[in-house]
Amino acid sequence: MDEKKFFNAHHSPTGAFASFTLGYPGASGGLGLELAGPANQNVYIGLQQIGGEAFEMLPFYGEAINQKQNFDSTGNPQSDKRKIKPFDDALIRRDFRLCSDIWTAGDLTFAIYSPVGSIPDPLSSSDQIFKRALIPAVFAEITIDNRNGTSERTALFGYQGSDPYSSMRHIIKNDNESRICGVGQGGLTAICTADNNVRSGLAFSIEDIAFCKSRESLMSGLGTIGALLLTAPAGVISSWKIVICFFRGGIVTQGIEAEYFYSKYFHSIEDVAAFGLKHFDEYRDQALKANSIIENTSLSSERKFMMAHSIRSYYGNTQLLSINDNPLWVVIEGEFRMINTMDLTVDHLFYEMMFNPWTVKNVLDFYCENYSYRDTVKIAGNQNEYPGGISFTHDMGVGKCFSPQGRSAYELPNLKGCYSFMTQEELVNWILCAGVYVCETSDSDWLISKRDVLKSCFSSMLNRDHFDPEKRDGVMDLDSSCVIDGAEINTYDNVDEFTGAARRNSYIAVKCWAAYTIFELLFTRLGESELAAQASEQAVLCASTICAFQRADGTIPALLEEDNQSMLISVIEGLVFPWLCKRELLEENGPYGKLVLALKNHCKAILKKGICLFEDNGWRLSSTSDNSWLSKIYLCQFVAEKILQLENTSGSDYAHLSWLTDSDNSYFAWSDQMRAGKVCGSRYYPRGVTSILWLK
Amino acid sequence: MDEKKFFNAHHSPTGAFASFTLGYPGASGGLGLELAGPANQNVYIGLQQIGGEAFEMLPFYGEAINQKQNFDSTGNPQSDKRKIKPFDDALIRRDFRLCSDIWTAGDLTFAIYSPVGSIPDPLSSSDQIFKRALIPAVFAEITIDNRNGTSERTALFGYQGSDPYSSMRHIIKNDNESRICGVGQGGLTAICTADNNVRSGLAFSIEDIAFCKSRESLMSGLGTIGALLLTAPAGVISSWKIVICFFRGGIVTQGIEAEYFYSKYFHSIEDVAAFGLKHFDEYRDQALKANSIIENTSLSSERKFMMAHSIRSYYGNTQLLSINDNPLWVVIEGEFRMINTMDLTVDHLFYEMMFNPWTVKNVLDFYCENYSYRDTVKIAGNQNEYPGGISFTHDMGVGKCFSPQGRSAYELPNLKGCYSFMTQEELVNWILCAGVYVCETSDSDWLISKRDVLKSCFSSMLNRDHFDPEKRDGVMDLDSSCVIDGAEINTYDNVDEFTGAARRNSYIAVKCWAAYTIFELLFTRLGESELAAQASEQAVLCASTICAFQRADGTIPALLEEDNQSMLISVIEGLVFPWLCKRELLEENGPYGKLVLALKNHCKAILKKGICLFEDNGWRLSSTSDNSWLSKIYLCQFVAEKILQLENTSGSDYAHLSWLTDSDNSYFAWSDQMRAGKVCGSRYYPRGVTSILWLK
Repeated sequence: MDEKKFFNAHHSPTGAFASFTLGYPGASGGLGLELAGPANQNVYIGLQQIGGEAFEMLPFYGEAINQKQNFDSTGNPQSDKRKIKPFDDALIRRDFRLCSDIWTAGDLTFAIYSPVGSIPDPLSSSDQIFKRALIPAVFAEITIDNRNGTSERTALFGYQGSDPYSSMRHIIKNDNESRICGVGQGGLTAICTADNNVRSGLAFSIEDIAFCKSRESLMSGLGTIGALLLTAPAGVISSWKIVICFFRGGIVTQGIEAEYFYSKYFHSIEDVAAFGLKHFDEYRDQALKANSIIENTSLSSERKFMMAHSIRSYYGNTQLLSINDNPLWVVIEGEFRMINTMDLTVDHLFYEMMFNPWTVKNVLDFYCENYSYRDTVKIAGNQNEYPGGISFTHDMGVGKCFSPQGRSAYELPNLKGCYSFMTQEELVNWILCAGVYVCETSDSDWLISKRDVLKSCFSSMLNRDHFDPEKRDGVMDLDSSCVIDGAEINTYDNVDEFTGAARRNSYIAVKCWAAYTIFELLFTRLGESELAAQASEQAVLCASTICAFQRADGTIPALLEEDNQSMLISVIEGLVFPWLCKRELLEENGPYGKLVLALKNHCKAILKKGICLFEDNGWRLSSTSDNSWLSKIYLCQFVAEKILQLENTSGSDYAHLSWLTDSDNSYFAWSDQMRAGKVCGSRYYPRGVTSILWLK
Repeated sequence: MDEKKFFNAHHSPTGAFASFTLGYPGASGGLGLELAGPANQNVYIGLQQIGGEAFEMLPFYGEAINQKQNFDSTGNPQSDKRKIKPFDDALIRRDFRLCSDIWTAGDLTFAIYSPVGSIPDPLSSSDQIFKRALIPAVFAEITIDNRNGTSERTALFGYQGSDPYSSMRHIIKNDNESRICGVGQGGLTAICTADNNVRSGLAFSIEDIAFCKSRESLMSGLGTIGALLLTAPAGVISSWKIVICFFRGGIVTQGIEAEYFYSKYFHSIEDVAAFGLKHFDEYRDQALKANSIIENTSLSSERKFMMAHSIRSYYGNTQLLSINDNPLWVVIEGEFRMINTMDLTVDHLFYEMMFNPWTVKNVLDFYCENYSYRDTVKIAGNQNEYPGGISFTHDMGVGKCFSPQGRSAYELPNLKGCYSFMTQEELVNWILCAGVYVCETSDSDWLISKRDVLKSCFSSMLNRDHFDPEKRDGVMDLDSSCVIDGAEINTYDNVDEFTGAARRNSYIAVKCWAAYTIFELLFTRLGESELAAQASEQAVLCASTICAFQRADGTIPALLEEDNQSMLISVIEGLVFPWLCKRELLEENGPYGKLVLALKNHCKAILKKGICLFEDNGWRLSSTSDNSWLSKIYLCQFVAEKILQLENTSGSDYAHLSWLTDSDNSYFAWSDQMRAGKVCGSRYYPRGVTSILWLK
């Protein structure tokens, strides 16, 4: 893989909507809580040179504005900048893995541990297990190799907080229960240790901390920068365990009032620090062990890197809430911060099914209860309304503000592109999630509890195909009346007009086909044989319709209409769902063998430069757009390789990795939308966990 | 007075550390909660032109970054900027008073009401009265005079929030209890109305709200800007009542955990809005009535302006907390955000004694319990320690973080200027506050409860004069050992070395004299006649010492030492305290007549250009510094005019007002430290309420 080492990565707890983001040079990372991007704080990590006063630093800071002059107008404070200087780049090494990220430079090692693990089901776990899993913290270890030193040397680790409401502060605790030395900002963020030979300092410049002459002066309560000073004796290797903590207590959302689930177990950030320090070794060991989830595979280094990077970005976007003591699992939509966007939920499904299946049920239930709606439908260009049915909103709100019941933050009428309704897309997404959840868990209680919802969904699907049963072809033909003069769109809202449309879109058609196959399975399990048969008929109809549009060159148009010249890789996405539910459905001699073959030929025909490959071999999801999405590429690579049995597509992986580590893009950690290799949207995004499919 | 109309002013509730700051052009104001300065939000207030689509706006917005492109990478949204334009400056009028601030432009009137009133003592008030007084909101009324219009016209009022954690949102409530239409950001800020013909809108540009074609499209959940659209029919005058709300629930401070006292009565910002709308007329009437506090006086227009402006800035810095259900009154130190800085408390004393005497007792008690300490003292240049005694910290913390017990955020050892200890200064300040509180309220229960503290304070005072009773001259000679190699300073920390020093400083000396006179009064009330006599002796000694340093030209040096050439106006400050406690003490034939006369002659001698008057006639507090503080000027003007009976000093008021309304300075609302007329520190500051003395 590319040896570019300076890219931002998340280091995040589970369900805390928090990230210690680090890796991009300058004031580009820091302790971010509930933010739409990196915190852009100065982060100071450095070590005093042997025999010299100067500190050499990792390059994660920029020019800081010294606010001391606001307090003291007698003159401008002058810091001696020569004494704090970055390490020579060439000295810096980074060992980046799923749960550990270790920087070494000279005699300094800075390791960050952020363990990945399953979140226990709140209904069947003890408080103790839950507290351990949900700690809103990550873990750092600083090591000074002072074996060559003849006198003591000091390392420092600090940051300049960015909360507009509260100050930086010392955190000092020394009682029977715990011992903490730390710095933090208000009650929101902190870095704390329980080890010896540590002093905490606050000041208006990092130099004033690094070169402070007395412990008493370090104890200032004023200053925009807080840091820990760790002093190592000569001749030995010393290390310190540090917990990087986040906390927000009380009501944290509007519209629907919720608290963080962790606040049941932690009263304050001091609590978080104490617990994290007490169990530091367990968390570090868990992190090192969890690295093997990726390492013990035969994946290429490119895929290992992308999987680790995307999973990290995912956790930074997770938020486990408590609403009247009931859990709600939330994944935030990266820079957009929408809450549980349904067309992401369906892509996170694969990851959740591996680690936290209960969250799938949890989110689907919350959609049913609060974010489902019923509509009528209409034929384009005609305002007559026909029966529609149930669907689900695009999202549950944005930026910690829940939308009113049955409304998304995103969807608006009278539009044909971005911000229009995704009624059909979100309806199939709900069904596909429900199907995979039931087939993989055999949770028949839940299935039975959703019998009526599934029937409503089925009826809603049929109505969107056509109100006249005779005219049904399995493909969506009617838009929700919610759009008024607009048209429904799908998750590819801003790729181009063909890719983003819903009606007769081939990507949506295959997902609808998949939904019908799942209806057949679920209705069969429910003993609803008549509905199962009808679902099967629809699936067959849909498959035939799609196949009928295949052209002589093997391609299937983006829109299942005459003369559409756009072509999509993403048409194959929907295959994954029946494959997960009942693999035999996709066999060559199975009921849908013809569709699978058609899609395979389509893929072969378009995976060419000039059509659906960029010049760098990166995948271009739509032949008519340069905007390609990595999360969907990962998913489609899996379908192409594992289901369609195309030759390994990893020849493109280097291109995809290069997009992520591009020096403009890599500030945003993992991002999704790339326009010819440059991020054009969906920055700092969770969706890349589709990469988990590569483990199957 | 100067007709400059574009200056920022606070419009603040009581005790909510919140401000709707408005008046300076550009994105310079907005809804600020717990901030160190103006919120720098775009605030949109405008009216549709007659017969045209365009909106004319008050000039409180700048170029806003349109973040829509982050969501929609298909192209850059282009807003039609021609349709939103500022009113011609000449059309805009402002009527600025203590509790109302009314802007008119064309057919639009935008009135803001922020009533000033006493805060009832929590121990003796009903919840209902308290809830009414503490509502974290201010009130606005928008009027459209559409008598000349032939079709309906729309006004808009909105803002672009600046909270990094939560999104803008609609606030819609329509139930039996209340009806609200509003926009807000998270749960922190909101503007709400209950009136008719109102729509709320969210979007990424104000144009997308102003010119939105359908109500449905206004209902987007996305957007960085929220606004209310108010539509007036043709031919009539219409108006809307709007509540501008703030809210922060739960624990809001660290170190010592506290909630806002108002959160006992209001659960959420929706509660605040509902209550404010229900009682809107009462609040507006209260505001208009409270204007008379200043208007019904014979003060000059300059003084009326400065008093109104400073009182507004004061309320923006007030914070009533609840700690284990006990109230703590906090005044925040403007841009520095320190908590209850003691050397400001003594200047806020005059205001509090008029409106909220219980807060003086409340803060003094909290200082005793949590922020007192005991030291030893030393002679400069010698590290021998002698008995010291009790004093009080400079502050209780900063930026919502309380310091550890007995420590301030500010004070550090080994310094001789800013950030050194103010042990003597804060000790006299506590005594002076206690004395004025007891003498004006006759609260003998409290006096008796503080008997031991007062004795400790007296002993501490004596020890700072000299450990050898024979060498006492009433003036401070020994520094606290806390300073180590430094020296104590006083509140004038950064004016210059003479003004800012504590030891033998004439300003401190007069305050010490005042403290001794107050000890005599309090010990007499307590029946401690021996101590009373000793206090009186000290007061006489101190007065003699000061007088002995008067030179032939009438001046008294800043430092009561040989050859000091600096001179201070602020030496007269201390006279105000005995004057408030027992006016006769200051009579010509009274025990301190000689001191009063000496200070009068000092004043006469230095209130001259080249010494303590600037070229513009503004007061220069120290002859050796250009840094002069308005709060202290107001106080000294009062002492000079009312106590020393110098001729009216109002000839300088125009200069002082000009400093505040200077086009650079006026962004910060009321500020204190002016270096030759330009703000150099203490911006956005509460201390100017010393102006309340002008009402005596």
